Amino acid sequence: MMEHSLFALVDLFGTFAFAVSGALAAEQKRLDLFGVVAISYMTACGGGIVRDLCLGSLPPVGISDWRYLATSALAAAMAIWARPIVDHLQHPVVFFDSLGLGFFAVVGAHKALLFGHNIEVAIVLGMVTAVGGGVARDVVLNRVPIILQKEIYALAALVGAALQVLGQFMEWRVAVTPWFAASICFAIRLLALRYSWSLPVFHKTDAAH
Amino acid sequence: MMEHSLFALVDLFGTFAFAVSGALAAEQKRLDLFGVVAISYMTACGGGIVRDLCLGSLPPVGISDWRYLATSALAAAMAIWARPIVDHLQHPVVFFDSLGLGFFAVVGAHKALLFGHNIEVAIVLGMVTAVGGGVARDVVLNRVPIILQKEIYALAALVGAALQVLGQFMEWRVAVTPWFAASICFAIRLLALRYSWSLPVFHKTDAAH
Amino acid sequence: MMEHSLFALVDLFGTFAFAVSGALAAEQKRLDLFGVVAISYMTACGGGIVRDLCLGSLPPVGISDWRYLATSALAAAMAIWARPIVDHLQHPVVFFDSLGLGFFAVVGAHKALLFGHNIEVAIVLGMVTAVGGGVARDVVLNRVPIILQKEIYALAALVGAALQVLGQFMEWRVAVTPWFAASICFAIRLLALRYSWSLPVFHKTDAAH
Repeated sequence: MMEHSLFALVDLFGTFAFAVSGALAAEQKRLDLFGVVAISYMTACGGGIVRDLCLGSLPPVGISDWRYLATSALAAAMAIWARPIVDHLQHPVVFFDSLGLGFFAVVGAHKALLFGHNIEVAIVLGMVTAVGGGVARDVVLNRVPIILQKEIYALAALVGAALQVLGQFMEWRVAVTPWFAASICFAIRLLALRYSWSLPVFHKTDAAH
Repeated sequence: MMEHSLFALVDLFGTFAFAVSGALAAEQKRLDLFGVVAISYMTACGGGIVRDLCLGSLPPVGISDWRYLATSALAAAMAIWARPIVDHLQHPVVFFDSLGLGFFAVVGAHKALLFGHNIEVAIVLGMVTAVGGGVARDVVLNRVPIILQKEIYALAALVGAALQVLGQFMEWRVAVTPWFAASICFAIRLLALRYSWSLPVFHKTDAAH
Repeated sequence: MMEHSLFALVDLFGTFAFAVSGALAAEQKRLDLFGVVAISYMTACGGGIVRDLCLGSLPPVGISDWRYLATSALAAAMAIWARPIVDHLQHPVVFFDSLGLGFFAVVGAHKALLFGHNIEVAIVLGMVTAVGGGVARDVVLNRVPIILQKEIYALAALVGAALQVLGQFMEWRVAVTPWFAASICFAIRLLALRYSWSLPVFHKTDAAH
């Protein structure tokens, strides 16, 4: 019970962090108040909605549980009217975003296994839960998704989801697995940011000259 | 019975108006004949398809009921071969688009409640039904969704969906509620166009200099 | 049995060809390794995933059957590390892409009928299966979908899906129908490429001056 509450709390922290990143991006594109809230919500809940559509868990929890919408709206409101606080939270935002990445990956993988699906479904949907919202944000704002270009991001989510799946199959202790899997994802992401770890890019524009 | 027919008729008017707006946008981007029909259909039915996916009402009615596809194709054909008529209908198109916005919001909210879901699901999916197609159109045509930037649009749909939900919970007369909710949405949208009501934009590019 | 194996094999050839086209496009946009694999997978499986969401066949086979992901990853790896082979396969890629178009259209239409849906659902979802991945690729890479602009492509898929539906309703021989329908689609596409058949475009930029 206590564990479940903690899980839900961190889930909402992740939602908040993703929502803030969506709101800031929407403001930059000069969207209006409604647009900022909409992009904020889409960034925070888009991945989970696609996961639930693929699992047939309908309606998606991001729509049916009011706390996700409320958290997104709160994050958007803060990005608009309490910008100094958000700027002050800049590091916390990166922190929560990375934390959210880990927990969303774990939650997504766990939910897929709970619905009785195989390992691949769990890993793919864990990753989709974690990165889907950011991709939706960038697609709607007409940008090439940043997470497919920059420091290791989706790969960290992949590792988190895979560890959760491994843990459940190896029957690691239930109370430990999600925390461990999310922590590794979180650590990879923070280290990637700290040391600018990037995956290779292969386009040979220069070599072609 | 009669009421249901009227409802279906106005639903198709809305479909037609959204389809015309999609076709005109696709022509501007120089898509070919097929592209124009595809964007037209996507604009008219995209919102309802996402709603039905979220409700698990499969296959989505926009795909299984031929009248939606036929209406979209007719609208695209008119936008191509009867452009003078469409230009003549310019004001009617804005009229039907606003009407469609209201009715799609009401239809979406009503269907979500019919499937036994809660208030939030009904309001969110009512809005998604009304604005989803326009967002899909702009995303595929590689533009930042116009409805997130300009005169009050999605907010009008939100009000329409919310009034429908309120009406059903307050047990207003069944024959009156949808017309009332759609009318208010319609009125807000027309007034916003007439008086250029916009929601605030928060990006402080100039202030930053 | 043998026929089913052949079908599955050609399905995977189509997946491979679509995945290669996705990987090449992602490299051009300078995505990183993960981005290339992600776009590759999305191009190959996006259409089938949307079809399965609309049919309620969950989780989508593109996610639950590991061979689709493995084929996509293989194609991406070849586009990155065995570029000379891929360039050598250039004509085969166009060949497989056209073949894949035909078979995806047939598979999609067949699956929709199998789930008990009507003609329109079968034709629309056959086409969505065939072209959905390419549209997803272009949307995520921030381009107007090429298949809505250039040589006859989606129309060929439409014809393939329609012939499969016709064949099933006319009770043509089960062993012949899919091959026939896919072949016609394939032939239309190759002829369109060979002779630059395009659908008309209607935007009158010049005429307006």
